[in-house]
Amino acid sequence: MRTTIIGLGLIGGSLAKDLRKAKFATEIIGVDANKEHAQKALEIGLVDKIETLEEGVKNTDLVIIAIPVDKELTVLPQVLDNVSDGTTVTDMGSTKREIIESVKAHSKRKNFVPAHPMSGTENSGPSAALEDLFKDKIAIICDHDDSGPQHLALIEKMFQILGMDIAYMTADEQDHSTAFVSHLPHAAAYALANAVQAKEDRNIIFDLASGGFRSTVRLAKSSGTMWHPIFQQNRNYVVESLDVYIKHLQEFRDCMHDKQDDKMKDLITNANKIRGILEGENPHLVKKEEKNVKLYTK
Amino acid sequence: MRTTIIGLGLIGGSLAKDLRKAKFATEIIGVDANKEHAQKALEIGLVDKIETLEEGVKNTDLVIIAIPVDKELTVLPQVLDNVSDGTTVTDMGSTKREIIESVKAHSKRKNFVPAHPMSGTENSGPSAALEDLFKDKIAIICDHDDSGPQHLALIEKMFQILGMDIAYMTADEQDHSTAFVSHLPHAAAYALANAVQAKEDRNIIFDLASGGFRSTVRLAKSSGTMWHPIFQQNRNYVVESLDVYIKHLQEFRDCMHDKQDDKMKDLITNANKIRGILEGENPHLVKKEEKNVKLYTK
Repeated sequence: MRTTIIGLGLIGGSLAKDLRKAKFATEIIGVDANKEHAQKALEIGLVDKIETLEEGVKNTDLVIIAIPVDKELTVLPQVLDNVSDGTTVTDMGSTKREIIESVKAHSKRKNFVPAHPMSGTENSGPSAALEDLFKDKIAIICDHDDSGPQHLALIEKMFQILGMDIAYMTADEQDHSTAFVSHLPHAAAYALANAVQAKEDRNIIFDLASGGFRSTVRLAKSSGTMWHPIFQQNRNYVVESLDVYIKHLQEFRDCMHDKQDDKMKDLITNANKIRGILEGENPHLVKKEEKNVKLYTK
Repeated sequence: MRTTIIGLGLIGGSLAKDLRKAKFATEIIGVDANKEHAQKALEIGLVDKIETLEEGVKNTDLVIIAIPVDKELTVLPQVLDNVSDGTTVTDMGSTKREIIESVKAHSKRKNFVPAHPMSGTENSGPSAALEDLFKDKIAIICDHDDSGPQHLALIEKMFQILGMDIAYMTADEQDHSTAFVSHLPHAAAYALANAVQAKEDRNIIFDLASGGFRSTVRLAKSSGTMWHPIFQQNRNYVVESLDVYIKHLQEFRDCMHDKQDDKMKDLITNANKIRGILEGENPHLVKKEEKNVKLYTK
């Protein structure tokens, strides 16, 4: 199947690797506004050729948009303007409401399957692409009734081939939940990195940086080019999640300050439950081997 | 060398594995108030025998205390009361001021080398013990002038054998720095786990838990038995670190709420610097192969 990938970074490049290996994509056209990234992606064999956006989306079976969500607001309508009637278009953006809104009235809206694979690393660019990046992770598909059934089926098949479980929800539910589970941890890591760097004797601190510190602050390495637009598009829900987080931090801080030892024990015991929750089965999730998919709808 | 380990959990058990493998410890006596842990440690070969504290610290070359820091306040003086003149005593506690204070006037204070290896996992108990847990990590030795030179040399040798770099500092510096680099990330993870669990539609959130969320919240699985006393003993510095962190989170939140996009870009760019700092060389650190050790003294 001829597949066009717009944006040859971590996500686009990793998709290229897996989709080619699985023979889901037999020819991969790359499109990237960054010429160095395009050249690199060609060089390391992620794509078979580089084309302009207009050329690349014509006469192709599938277009995958994997670029920062601010850029996508411009690129997605252009893509739908230029694809032929049978072409499926999907995206990998971490926010969904504004993106879907941008093509709400487009005559080819049904060609578009809005998606968000919950996977990534703190690195970026084509050289950061990894095989199996998506395996055993979750892909969100939003407002699936607004996509044509053939287009939806093709994207479901793609995620299954990548080894992903699929969760279906409205764009609003996705933006709200993702604020807590992905955008908040990034904001928390950015603030932690800034807090520790602001400390006077920072050299000692960095000498001591332990595994615990490194894992907690890892996401603070993530690129602002990708994350700033996510925060902008999901502003209200991210602010809500930060308010909830700050409230819990303040409670922990006050409890410590006021020597409320029993309450602190309770707070730690409650936090510990995250182990069972994260390591247990997820009964609410659609496993890829199941026929009947779970719909998250309000 | 005959070595007694008090506390056969993650740290004590991992030490037993490495010190035996390196033939630094030729006979290992285990002491643990928890009979199940003691039995398990014997069963899986971490220790050669189990003894009571009083028996275990007599006629031994080295005593390593690896128990929660509140328990250590009682156990450390008992150990010093019972060891013979030539025995070296060290500890693995994450706080140092109160512990050192508890034996300040003890006649065997010179036998004690206060230490803190910056390594661990979120798991606990003898079954959590890992080989090479300490390799390439940092060990802090505090107030080294107050330890006898032979005792200090033995503990330095032990950390070198474990593959660790050594940082020397005062107990106050250690507690202050460790508040930021270790205790704060734990408090932040506990609060994040509580914040996300408090959310109404938590099931959706946990289905979506991505790698980013998992790594940021990992430390929230850490045992309260170990961490509550650390927070108590380092209360003031942990509160200080939480205040700095909350200030930076609030700044990030306000910036997002008030649509101060340029400032947010700057905050993310500054946070990104953590990559270079964490991945670069640490010029301030004493590498184990260096002869001249760096002293962190005020």
